[in-house]
Amino acid sequence: MSLKIALLPGDGIGPEVLAQAVKCLEAVEETFNQHFIFKEAPVGAIAIDKKGKPLPDATLKLCKESDAVLFGAIGDPKYDNDPEAKVRPEQGLLQLRKELGLFANIRPILSHPTLLDKSPLKKKVVNGTDFVIYRELTGGIYFGEKKLNEEGTKASDLCEYTEEEISRIAHLAFKAAKGRKKKLTLIDKANVLESSRLWRKVVAKIGESYPEITLDFMFVDNAAMQIILNPKQFDVILTENMFGDIISDEGSVIGGSIGLLASASVGEENALFEPIHGSYPQAKGKDIANPIASILSAAMLLEHFGLMEEAWAVKKAVDKSLKKGIVTPDLKANSQYGTNQVGDFIAHNI
Amino acid sequence: MSLKIALLPGDGIGPEVLAQAVKCLEAVEETFNQHFIFKEAPVGAIAIDKKGKPLPDATLKLCKESDAVLFGAIGDPKYDNDPEAKVRPEQGLLQLRKELGLFANIRPILSHPTLLDKSPLKKKVVNGTDFVIYRELTGGIYFGEKKLNEEGTKASDLCEYTEEEISRIAHLAFKAAKGRKKKLTLIDKANVLESSRLWRKVVAKIGESYPEITLDFMFVDNAAMQIILNPKQFDVILTENMFGDIISDEGSVIGGSIGLLASASVGEENALFEPIHGSYPQAKGKDIANPIASILSAAMLLEHFGLMEEAWAVKKAVDKSLKKGIVTPDLKANSQYGTNQVGDFIAHNI
Ligand SMILES: CC(C)[C@H](C(=O)O)[C@@H](O)C(=O)O
Ligand SMILES: CC(C)[C@H](C(=O)O)[C@@H](O)C(=O)O
Repeated sequence: MSLKIALLPGDGIGPEVLAQAVKCLEAVEETFNQHFIFKEAPVGAIAIDKKGKPLPDATLKLCKESDAVLFGAIGDPKYDNDPEAKVRPEQGLLQLRKELGLFANIRPILSHPTLLDKSPLKKKVVNGTDFVIYRELTGGIYFGEKKLNEEGTKASDLCEYTEEEISRIAHLAFKAAKGRKKKLTLIDKANVLESSRLWRKVVAKIGESYPEITLDFMFVDNAAMQIILNPKQFDVILTENMFGDIISDEGSVIGGSIGLLASASVGEENALFEPIHGSYPQAKGKDIANPIASILSAAMLLEHFGLMEEAWAVKKAVDKSLKKGIVTPDLKANSQYGTNQVGDFIAHNI
Repeated sequence: MSLKIALLPGDGIGPEVLAQAVKCLEAVEETFNQHFIFKEAPVGAIAIDKKGKPLPDATLKLCKESDAVLFGAIGDPKYDNDPEAKVRPEQGLLQLRKELGLFANIRPILSHPTLLDKSPLKKKVVNGTDFVIYRELTGGIYFGEKKLNEEGTKASDLCEYTEEEISRIAHLAFKAAKGRKKKLTLIDKANVLESSRLWRKVVAKIGESYPEITLDFMFVDNAAMQIILNPKQFDVILTENMFGDIISDEGSVIGGSIGLLASASVGEENALFEPIHGSYPQAKGKDIANPIASILSAAMLLEHFGLMEEAWAVKKAVDKSLKKGIVTPDLKANSQYGTNQVGDFIAHNI
């Protein structure tokens, strides 16, 4: 198999961490006699600077022609505090998700035994956490009509969902639950939102064809509490785009380090893999960013294409770096190891 | 002063806990020679059962004629899993907020030293937490136009905000920050939502007239992480309705018990006081529900009308019950004290 992989480093620490993931994929090529074709293209703030827009046509074209996209990070503070900015780096990511039809964002949340000390939660609360979030990624309030009146005194965003959008991700989530603890929790706000009531109706209906799965419903405000009170109760979480953004970021810190978490965004024909963390501009160029999330997103890519042995080798090498303490300073105060060295260590152990 | 107080017990444990708050207000009448006029009316599921709607006209009329509303809790599971239900208990609460113009929901979040063991967060993370959330309560996606197409296959909710809606609560939040640690954090999703960009613009503008306040901005997904990673960084949080619902519930569990948290919802002409917790139907009638949040909401009512000494007496009595361990089983396993006994103890100590 010769996979075409588009590399989109993006902003901030994106390029540094992505480079380590590529190192690891190159190690996989060598060890397992695989062949990957890498092509790189700009996205985000850097693409605005270079090409005037966050997702240049050539970048989109490259992604469409590739089998998968490996993504770094996106965002630059110079755009965040300017409500008048007409172009924003994030538009690049949103447009990419939409154009590639990446309707499901999948985020595994695991508590790593070696990192229980770093979790903000008490050990007895978080130990043993193992769930996965299926977040709808191309609908809802992110993509609904946006309006601003001429005087600039009234603004709106529309949250819209169709049965079809709900049903395609629901099936993915139910199937995932089959291979896990057989429990699916839909998070919504059905006591207030019409769109949430549609989610509840459609998901309940689909649930009938998965009789082995226990389906339950939880309001998003309650879910925000339950994730910290008792994260072990969850197996598969299914939710819409905006709630998924919030709940999955909340979930991502309970394990002790967001620097370890990867995600996959999948559609009918394409897939994108990226770390959960952002572009962390303060750390840019300092060789301190943790590359593990990016490396694990490469492992998710391998799994997606059925390269299980290869993915396992990457994950094993990551475990080794954690156990041996060959990690960046975010995981071990005063650690002498930088982004590059950690990447090298993991790549050499594949 | 002779305050007219409307009592709306609502559903589940609402009536039981509200009764304890009333006991305490009666103790205040006696000890401080005050006079309160209590009138009770149904709201929520019980009002649907009795009067066919969650906010009967007579209940609304009573609230409008009163100086303040003391609210129990609302909601019944029989409506939650029925996406087709045309009437829902929660509509009563939402309509009441809208009709009374209660545009600001104020929630203090404090970590109680006696309850650090009960917090899901590590002691070093949560100890010393002291912030207050100003949540916009009568706008946004809660009250925007809702649509469902005829086939029932497409649903939408509109999130809309005007400068005026933002500005009136922003001023309240800035004023609150003046009397506190002088820091205000606006939580939004300005990298995606048009309405959030309006929030950012309006709040930044208003911030210019409060030069002593440090204003910062935080995306809601990041905020969901920061509240558990480092809750001590916050002083006053300002946010829109839906984000406020999620973030304030998340914040409410970090102190160790949601059973202690009260909130005020205020407008130009009226004010409503209620516990944060819900109707907790499983506990109904068992004399196990913690009445403290409801009692503290009565204390917030007293403060709102400038009865500071009276409010202080109530809070001191609550502290005494916590210190002496005269608390319901949620705070102390195997506690022999029920809702009523805890209420009696606190009332007797006023
Ligand atoms: C950068 C931003 C637009 C994005 C989102 O909100 O979806 C990010 O927070 C994420 O979760 O991938
Ligand atoms: C009951 C529900 C409609 C309500 C809300 O979402 O506002 C509740 O969660 C709250 O926060 O007061």
